[in-house]
Amino acid sequence: MVSCSAPGKIYLFGEHAVVYGETAIACAVELRTRVRAEISDSVIVKSQIGRTGIDFEKHPYISSVIEKMGEISPIKGVFLEIDSDIPVGSGLGSSAAVTIASIGALNELFGCGLSLKEIAKLGHQIEISVQGAASPTDTYVSTFGGVVTIPERRKLSMPDCGIVIGDTGVFSSTKELVANVRKLRESYPELIEPLMASIGRISKIGESLVLAGDYPSIGRLMNVNQGLLDALGVNILELSRLIYSARGAGAFGAKITGAGGGGCMVALTAPDKCMQVAAAISEAGGKVTITKPTQQGLLLD
Amino acid sequence: MVSCSAPGKIYLFGEHAVVYGETAIACAVELRTRVRAEISDSVIVKSQIGRTGIDFEKHPYISSVIEKMGEISPIKGVFLEIDSDIPVGSGLGSSAAVTIASIGALNELFGCGLSLKEIAKLGHQIEISVQGAASPTDTYVSTFGGVVTIPERRKLSMPDCGIVIGDTGVFSSTKELVANVRKLRESYPELIEPLMASIGRISKIGESLVLAGDYPSIGRLMNVNQGLLDALGVNILELSRLIYSARGAGAFGAKITGAGGGGCMVALTAPDKCMQVAAAISEAGGKVTITKPTQQGLLLD
Repeated sequence: MVSCSAPGKIYLFGEHAVVYGETAIACAVELRTRVRAEISDSVIVKSQIGRTGIDFEKHPYISSVIEKMGEISPIKGVFLEIDSDIPVGSGLGSSAAVTIASIGALNELFGCGLSLKEIAKLGHQIEISVQGAASPTDTYVSTFGGVVTIPERRKLSMPDCGIVIGDTGVFSSTKELVANVRKLRESYPELIEPLMASIGRISKIGESLVLAGDYPSIGRLMNVNQGLLDALGVNILELSRLIYSARGAGAFGAKITGAGGGGCMVALTAPDKCMQVAAAISEAGGKVTITKPTQQGLLLD
Repeated sequence: MVSCSAPGKIYLFGEHAVVYGETAIACAVELRTRVRAEISDSVIVKSQIGRTGIDFEKHPYISSVIEKMGEISPIKGVFLEIDSDIPVGSGLGSSAAVTIASIGALNELFGCGLSLKEIAKLGHQIEISVQGAASPTDTYVSTFGGVVTIPERRKLSMPDCGIVIGDTGVFSSTKELVANVRKLRESYPELIEPLMASIGRISKIGESLVLAGDYPSIGRLMNVNQGLLDALGVNILELSRLIYSARGAGAFGAKITGAGGGGCMVALTAPDKCMQVAAAISEAGGKVTITKPTQQGLLLD
């Protein structure tokens, strides 16, 4: 029996603009998806969703992983049990984490010999096959952990801060939001292109602030980034409510993480202010998760 | 006895950026301050604040107007009665309107012969003398009415739309907000200067949209402008709440008007949607004023 885990991620800076080649900074967080794997007579996948065999509807990512890994080393039967801290469909990279942790577990159990780099690449291919399109960011960050610049993939460290995530509970479609931003950009290229560049500039400045461990300034730039996301039309009142509550409770900064239009916001806090920021977000109607950055990507537990 | 009135204004685009020389677009609205003036034995000023003589604390603008106009034509005694639709201290140009309407009334009553241009200029000087600093926008727009580009002062027209103003009731200091934006700009000039330029670009695009009467697009750009104001740090949750409520109720667009940090937001609507947008803003906790653009600046009633 082997057990692997892989983390979710938040965006400190740069979502949406990264679609147009601008720099973003993602940060792996200590919310993990664990996959326990053991040889079995048949394929069994057990998760919160239920117990299935190969099932591309109920367990699309894991089913794809079993199929792809079976091409490297034949898999007659395997029992996979999934357990996750990461809210599904909230832009925190839950699908990447389950994909990477599953690849990691099967890689170990069947001795496939994939390197981390190969695991990240296969994970990205699987996300594309399931979703139709996918950024390599989620699978990369889930594999390697840490604070990572995209697309350059410089790995930074961020040792000492709290991260509080607030989920609005409002469903949003990343695909639709990305399409709406594209339409806005096509309507007013002379306006929206410089805004995308401004978001990229925030990430560039942010990188040196992360290196310097200057959390108050990182937070201040997260707030500026949030305004630009609002300008792109991906904010909603429910997100604003959680974001302003977090700032009001003493967070260094707070913004949407991911595509927006619903989903989650993220607040950066001093370690000793997590609880009060979490309480404020909760008070404002958000479902709260307290976490922190992690250097640990895919792990054999 | 003479009676003059002058309008307040909202910003369609460009507040804050206009401080750094970028184009803004202000719009006179059909909220007016009326000043009735007649010869009297002594100076009496009567308003909602109370009944005073020359009183630079209670009636600073009107007292300054009487003083300055007295230099042109001696004023022994005058009775001035003020009545205003414009909420005070909410960024809608109430001080400019009372100043311009007072100058207009005394100009008429004492036959001073000032032109509109001279009235606007004197009004600006009086705002500077009272406030220490003042943009010429409010007094200019109050004198001439219409939709006006700043600093170019091209007068546009905007015949057929509703304007709904929501007041958060939260006090804010324009001086402090302008200073905060300046600090942010000094901390990150390479980031904030392009954002100011982006706001200027919105006004430039907005000008042609006003000329074309394309209200949906004007609204869309107001929303982008709002995000940039949020990025500059002058938004608050109470404003967001009113802004998103107005958009949700079918406004073309909605944003802060004026310095932000409290004060008012403005929504642009189709004439037949004013009531539902107003209801939504009110529901969200705002004090609502329904109005419309006006071509009429200073008027002899």
